Order: sequence, then structure tokens, then C-alpha cells
Amino acid sequence: MTQLPISGKQQIGFSEAAAGRETFTSSNPQSGAENPWTFFEATEAEVNRALEAARAASETFAGMGGARRAQFLRTIATELEGIADLIVTAYTAESGLPEGRARGELGRTTGQLRAFADLAEEGSWIHARIDTALPERQPVPKPDIRKCLHPLGPVVVFGASNFPLAFSTAGGDTASALAAGCPVVVKGHPMHPATGELVARAITQAARETGMPDGVFSHLQGISHRLGEGLVSHPLTTAVGFTGSQQGGLALARLGQQRPVPIPVFAEMGSINPVVLLPSALEAASGWAQAYAQSVTLGAGQFCTNPGLLIAMESPALETFIKDLARAMAGIPASCMLHANISNRYKEVRGQLLAQEGVSLVSSGDEPVGPNRVPATVARVSGADFSANPRLQQEVFGPFTLVVACRDRAELQATLSGLEGQLTATLLGSDTELSEAGGLVSLLREKAGRVLFNGVPTGVEVCPAMQHGGPFPATTDGRFTSVGSDAILRWARPVAYQNCPQALLPGALRDANPLGIQRLVNGTYTRKPL
Amino acid sequence: MTQLPISGKQQIGFSEAAAGRETFTSSNPQSGAENPWTFFEATEAEVNRALEAARAASETFAGMGGARRAQFLRTIATELEGIADLIVTAYTAESGLPEGRARGELGRTTGQLRAFADLAEEGSWIHARIDTALPERQPVPKPDIRKCLHPLGPVVVFGASNFPLAFSTAGGDTASALAAGCPVVVKGHPMHPATGELVARAITQAARETGMPDGVFSHLQGISHRLGEGLVSHPLTTAVGFTGSQQGGLALARLGQQRPVPIPVFAEMGSINPVVLLPSALEAASGWAQAYAQSVTLGAGQFCTNPGLLIAMESPALETFIKDLARAMAGIPASCMLHANISNRYKEVRGQLLAQEGVSLVSSGDEPVGPNRVPATVARVSGADFSANPRLQQEVFGPFTLVVACRDRAELQATLSGLEGQLTATLLGSDTELSEAGGLVSLLREKAGRVLFNGVPTGVEVCPAMQHGGPFPATTDGRFTSVGSDAILRWARPVAYQNCPQALLPGALRDANPLGIQRLVNGTYTRKPL
Repeated sequence: MTQLPISGKQQIGFSEAAAGRETFTSSNPQSGAENPWTFFEATEAEVNRALEAARAASETFAGMGGARRAQFLRTIATELEGIADLIVTAYTAESGLPEGRARGELGRTTGQLRAFADLAEEGSWIHARIDTALPERQPVPKPDIRKCLHPLGPVVVFGASNFPLAFSTAGGDTASALAAGCPVVVKGHPMHPATGELVARAITQAARETGMPDGVFSHLQGISHRLGEGLVSHPLTTAVGFTGSQQGGLALARLGQQRPVPIPVFAEMGSINPVVLLPSALEAASGWAQAYAQSVTLGAGQFCTNPGLLIAMESPALETFIKDLARAMAGIPASCMLHANISNRYKEVRGQLLAQEGVSLVSSGDEPVGPNRVPATVARVSGADFSANPRLQQEVFGPFTLVVACRDRAELQATLSGLEGQLTATLLGSDTELSEAGGLVSLLREKAGRVLFNGVPTGVEVCPAMQHGGPFPATTDGRFTSVGSDAILRWARPVAYQNCPQALLPGALRDANPLGIQRLVNGTYTRKPL
Repeated sequence: MTQLPISGKQQIGFSEAAAGRETFTSSNPQSGAENPWTFFEATEAEVNRALEAARAASETFAGMGGARRAQFLRTIATELEGIADLIVTAYTAESGLPEGRARGELGRTTGQLRAFADLAEEGSWIHARIDTALPERQPVPKPDIRKCLHPLGPVVVFGASNFPLAFSTAGGDTASALAAGCPVVVKGHPMHPATGELVARAITQAARETGMPDGVFSHLQGISHRLGEGLVSHPLTTAVGFTGSQQGGLALARLGQQRPVPIPVFAEMGSINPVVLLPSALEAASGWAQAYAQSVTLGAGQFCTNPGLLIAMESPALETFIKDLARAMAGIPASCMLHANISNRYKEVRGQLLAQEGVSLVSSGDEPVGPNRVPATVARVSGADFSANPRLQQEVFGPFTLVVACRDRAELQATLSGLEGQLTATLLGSDTELSEAGGLVSLLREKAGRVLFNGVPTGVEVCPAMQHGGPFPATTDGRFTSVGSDAILRWARPVAYQNCPQALLPGALRDANPLGIQRLVNGTYTRKPL
């Protein structure tokens, strides 16, 4: 493992840098031991250099067009695949997650990069609109007006701890921002800096190979809050992508708002992803208990769509379900979490939750052996006690779920009404019962970005229809998504051109439609030239 | 005029209310006299009632579908036309603007209502996306995921002083929010409360006629900041539309961010709309001097796209142009502004600007006679002095323009680089010169929401390609527009449905495509059913 080619340095455009005096290391959560690499904390001057390089690259990169950017993204995917074994070695050493998960996540990551490459190359995502002139119109002539999206400029991406690949250095935020035409400065997550460095080097290599401008990508490492704050506050930063804790997300969002020129901070801050078990689902519930237990404990429960809340009506069938669930959870070995900070936090918040009025422990796995192992936990509470105590909506990040047993349908609806914004909400029930559940669907739609039927919320498909962003506080801005092709829309804004000469228009808006994209021309969607 | 049927009351859903003890009046800017109507200041309880009624109407209204909402919007337009004479009487008495402007603006207002009716009826604006299931996919099956936009809920709209119809009670914000399916609570602008009341009554009448739910529209009046703050802070408010001053917009945006659940405040705060005169345009500039003078003084300069800044390179031709401009401005009679607050503010800010280092007065119209009349003004400054002093970027709301004479092309570019975000930016020049101006276009695109060529920025076309929203501080969120069909996108957010039974899907997402809308189905844009 010591043979991994890790320099510990910042990647700033095509150069490496390590002017900082502070250093840090990562640890292996499985053993608790320190990993054998040392990383330099990025300095303020390095932040400046990265953003100045990004800014300098902006116009060239934006002007390159979707096909060139697609080539860049696909080459990143190829480069990552070329060093897959190195990445998997670093990933498993830094995350404690198994090799299968590492390889699966690498596949998801390269898949995302290629999906955004396709999107950039196809080009219709920029929402081109053309309204041609009517010079004879009375009382005043109508001018020629055309509009499409343009990239914002340098984007700062915060790597997420729980997806060292798919939501980190080359994850969905980076892929979508590069696809949009924005240079990216990543703040690597300090729990997997070696993984981040290897990935950053692959991106830089791809940028060189495909002739991208120096500065299109930088990777800065650090454990201090100062680094993240400096990146969000930097005057050249135009937008921020973040996946992580509510506390961190809210702090960065506030910083983004308080700048002289405010910028959007897209923070995905997790949620407890309520699952409603309708009576019909309870009757045939033994299958659900197993599936639900798997979903709660998948990846040690460290997924943003981990179902932390199960809501049902009291009945003998619910008691049976809870027993089945407890049994299923008990059969799952204690999980190793990503880091001591995360496993300690799990124990702390779990303890706080179990100490709340009316909450009782249903089952807790065997006393775990080994560092960072935590017990998968089921707790229960009544609908009335849940609704009376907003602290019970706190996310316990990890393999934890709370069953809310409601006296009747009214209490169930009240429980749902009182929920905060969520990434997902799920309904489990028979087709007949679901067909009468229109009111519940409206309620869940108001609370969540994605409403699921007879499934579990973990597993976030990367596709055009995906919505991974719910009402506050699940995310800072539920109008956008951080997974799926619409994630690209976070990094662009529309610009209109009035009576602009053809030669000065972006290709997307020229009469001939040289990009062959879908456009709204005088009210009609078409790919035809004018 | 006393015969206008003005009650001075709040319109809360289908009821009137006037529980407040405080009252206020409007004045006639042409004479300075008070108008003969008294208006009640809305109380906190009335704010609550309006928002609770809006909330109660939300689900029914959202569920009604675009065709029903279109009928509502068209009936509002018809109702407004039915009382056009009353509206024009109130409008001219409260704004000091001439009857022709009133009738023109009424036409724009009804035109907007019908345009949003068409948009709602056609229905494709909700961005429907369908990705069908692949149950056989390895390693995991792909679920069926579908997504479209859903209305946010109750929207608060602030009437604007400078467009008593087109950006006020039944203006673009109200029309687009209703089209999206959001109930609206308007805070009427206190400079034209009688106009607002007449319009509100027409909306309420249309709501009754077309069977809309009680609470779909309310209209609250008041002069206190407390009223506006109460509306933005109210827990049931989901979004806010505002057009007005930077100070007001920033204060409301901050309130929107500081709520327990933050909401978007779309504030259009005006700008100075730079116009760049290239040398070739100067050579043939006499026409531009006339057109520019008209644009600066149109509506007493009280337009958000009023060109307050003209940037050119020093030359004998520029001196001739400035003389022509001064002559053209001098030939335009002194304007009556909307209100003493506005005319006083014009004099104050104009005075501050003229007192800045390096600024000299070029021409000021005749000493105006009569209340609220202000002199149209041209001032000049060097590029170096302009760039050194950010205060020169302050908007002088009214018939004022500042000419920035730059030593050379480099100084001109530096001047443009130093500009804040703008609603519009304009280039005037010959085709040949424009064809070489790619760098300038990139620069202006970065600064503005709309870039114009050989035209004046006043006159904001209502069409799909319009962008009326620029980078901060022109608006709080340059990713959205407050004019044109995309204005509807401010009031909705996407919701995805995973494995949802057909019967529970919104019509827009059902296999049969009952609405016949444009959808992205498995990556292809189509109106075909599945």
C-alpha cells in the first residue's frame, strides 16, 4: 500500500503545489491505524492560484463547445479505469468499505462522467429559445430575441465523505459542472485524500490529453474549516456544490449569501427519508422487513437516502413486522463506519434519540467488536410523541431507523404533515390501497423531492427524470437536483441576445442550428434550422 | 373622479376586510394634491387570513390543471378590459403618467395574462421527463422514474411603483404565479392603491366566474414596512416576487433567507444598463443621440432598463454626439415623476453623483415648473475616474444618463470589466465593427441578462426568449427572469415519482400523455404517448 504514488500535494491546474506547513493524514477505519501518506493543507495563496487559474480558463473552456467537453469527460472515465486498482486500494484503505463497493462506485462514477459527456455533446440541455423579429408589428416592431444557458464560471465542489468516488473529486458535481462548461476547484474530503489525489491526477491527465486549458480543474486538500470557507468566499467563485452534514451545508450556504456578490451554494444535507407502511403492506410485510433492513444498513447506513423513519398504524401486524425487522437487522453484521468522527457521532446522536420521551429501543445488534463498528438499531415511538418532539426528526447518520406507530389514519397524516423537507418519501402498499392514497401522495410530494412506491429509497438512479434534492432542510434549494442529468442546470444561467448578428451568436442560437439541438422556435419545439 | 367605486379595503379571497385602524391615501403627482380615497392598512390578522386562505386553496388550484387556470387568466384580462376606463382614471390620477401610457400598459398587462394562459394551457413548461423501467438490467433493475414541475404554494407579490399595471397587482409576477398553479397574495403598491383595488376586484370577479377556490387571490394594502416584512416572513409563504429598489429588494431577500425555512425572493432591483457606443456608431451617431435621449426619458426615466450609462472612446465624434444628445434631451419637456418620494430621491442621488470627483454636468433641462417635475440630465466623466469610484455605478432612477469617455480601447474594456451585474448591456456599432467585437460580447454577457445590438434597452418584449434578470445586484437571482414565459419557472420545483401507479401520477406523466405535452421520454423529446 505504501507503493501508491501519493505526493500529498495540491493539484493546481497542470501544476502541483505544497507551500503549506500544516499536514494531515487519513486513517484506515477497519483497523483504526493511520495510513502511510502525508497531505499538505492548502494555503490561502494556493486557493487564490486555483481560482485565478479557473477564472483564466473559463472563457476558453466555455467556448469549446459540448463535443470537446464530452471528449474530456470520457477521457477522465478512461483514465480512472486505467488506475482502478490503485484507486480501489486507496479507497478501501481510507473508507473501510469493501472492494466490491469500491468497484461498484467507480462504475457509477465513470457512468456519470459518460452520461454527462453525452448530455454535453447532445447539447439540448441549454434550453435554446428563438423568437424571430416582426418588423411590421404595430404599435412597435418586435425585435429578434434568442436565449440559451451559459456556464456561470469557476465552481467549487466539496467532496463527500460517504461516496469517495461518486460524490467526490470526480463525482456528480464535478462531472455536471465540467459538462456545463465551468472550471472546477475541488476541495477534497479529508477522510479520503489519497483516493482524491489519484482521481485528481486522472482528471488532470485527461485535461492535458484532450487539450483543455490549464486551470480547468484543481484539487485542494485540507482538514481546516478555513480552506472551505476561503473557497466559498473567494470573489472568483461563482457557485458551490456540497454533499454532507446539515451543519456544514448551512454554514457554507450562509457564507455564500453573505458575500458582497452572493452565489448559490447547492448543499445536499441528507434527510430521514420517511417510509409509510400502509396496512396492506403490513399484511404481506415479511418481505418488506428484509428489504427495509437491507436498505437501512447498506453501506453502514451512510447513504443520504437511508430510510431513517418508518411510519405505520398500530396493529398486531405492525408488531409482527417490527419483530421481523428486528430479526433481520440482528442478522446483519455490525458495520464499520467511515471514520471515528462518524462512528462517534452515530453513537452520540443515537443515544440522544433513545433518551427522548417515549422512545424505546426495539433492537440493537450484538455489541460490536473492532474500531468504528456500530450496532444497527431499531427504535420505536408513538405518533403523538413523535409529533410533539422535533428533535426526533434529527438524522442519525448510520444504520438506524425509528418506527413511528400511529393510533389511526389521522395521527399518521398529522405525523407526515409535521415532517421537515426530505430527499425522498416512500409509500408501501397494495395496488388497491395505493389507488385510494391520493391524499397521502399530495402530502408526500409536498415534503420530498422524490416519491417512491413499493421500493426502498436507497439506490439513486442516474437518469434525466431523477430528482435528488428536496425542500429545505434536505437541500438548500429543492428546485435543483444533484443526481441525474438536470444536475447540470445548477451551473448555468440564461442570457438573451437582442438583434444580434449571426456571427456573434453562440452556435446554439444561429439560424442554421449547427449543433442540431432541440430549440423552442417561435413557440414550437424543433431541431430544424430557421 | 370621486365616483370611482373605491372601498379602501383589503381583498381576502372572496371577502373584503378592513380591520385596521391606520389609513393612508395616494396623491396626484401632476398636481401634488391628495386623491379622494382612503385606504386601510392591512393588519397582521389579515395577513394571516390571506395566507391561510391561499394555503387552503393551494391543492385544489394546483390540481385544476392548466386549461382551467388558463380560463381564469383570460377572464381576468376580459374583466380588466371591462373596467378599462375606471382603471385609466385611477392610474392617471395616481401615477401622473398620461392616458396613452395607461392604456398601453393595460394592453401589455392583458397581453401577459393571455400569454401565460396559453403557456399554462399548452402545458409543456413543466419539463416532464420519463425514464421507463428496465427490470432485467444487471447488476440491479432500473426502476421507472418520472419527473415534472409542481407549483410551490402561496406566492407573495409586491406591486411595483413604476408599472402600476404590468408589474403590479395583475402584473407579470401574479400572472406567472397563477399560471404555475400558485395562489397569490399581492401587497399593493401604496403609490397606486386605487388602481390596485380596481384590478384586485377584477381578479376576484374572474376567480368567482371561473370557479376558482376561495383564497386563490388576495390583495393587501399598506404603507408600512411591517406589512411587507410580515408577508415575506409568514410560514405559509413559499416564494416572493418583487420589483423595486435595491435597498428594498435586499432587505426582503435577507428576510427570506433568515426564515426557519428559507424561501426564494426574486427581487428585480434595477440597473444602469450600460450602452457601448463603438467608433463606427459615433460616426453615424446623430440618429443614436435622438433614440438614446428618448430611451433615457421614456416614462420619466422610470424604467428598470433605462440606459443610465453610455460608454465610448474619446474622439471629436464623441464630442459631437454628446452635443447632439444634450440638444435632444433639452428638447424633451421636464418629466413629472410618480411621487414626491421618487422625485426627491432623483434630485438627491443626481446631486450626489454630480458632486463626485471628475463628474461634470453636460446639460440639464430647463428649470422645471410644477410638482414632481425633474430635469432630464446628461453628465460626463472619464473612464479612469469612473473605474476609480464605485459610487458612480449607483442608479439615478429617472431621466439621467452618465457618459463615460474612455481614453482608448483598453480603458473601455477596464470600464466594462468593473461593472456590477446588469439587466441589460448594449452594443452600438456597424456590422463590420460588431463582427470584430466578440471579446466585448463575452464581457457584456458576463455582466448582463440581455445583450442588445443596435437598439435601446427600454421595451422589454414578452416572449419565450426574453431574459429580464441579470447577475447580482441587478436581481437577486440571475438564473430566473421576471418577464417572458420562463418567468413561470420561478414558482415551481421538480418532483420525481418512482414506480408510481398510473392512476396516482399527474396527467403530465401518464403513459397516454393525456395533456399532449412535449416530454423527454427515455432521452427523446416527443409528444407521443408511451
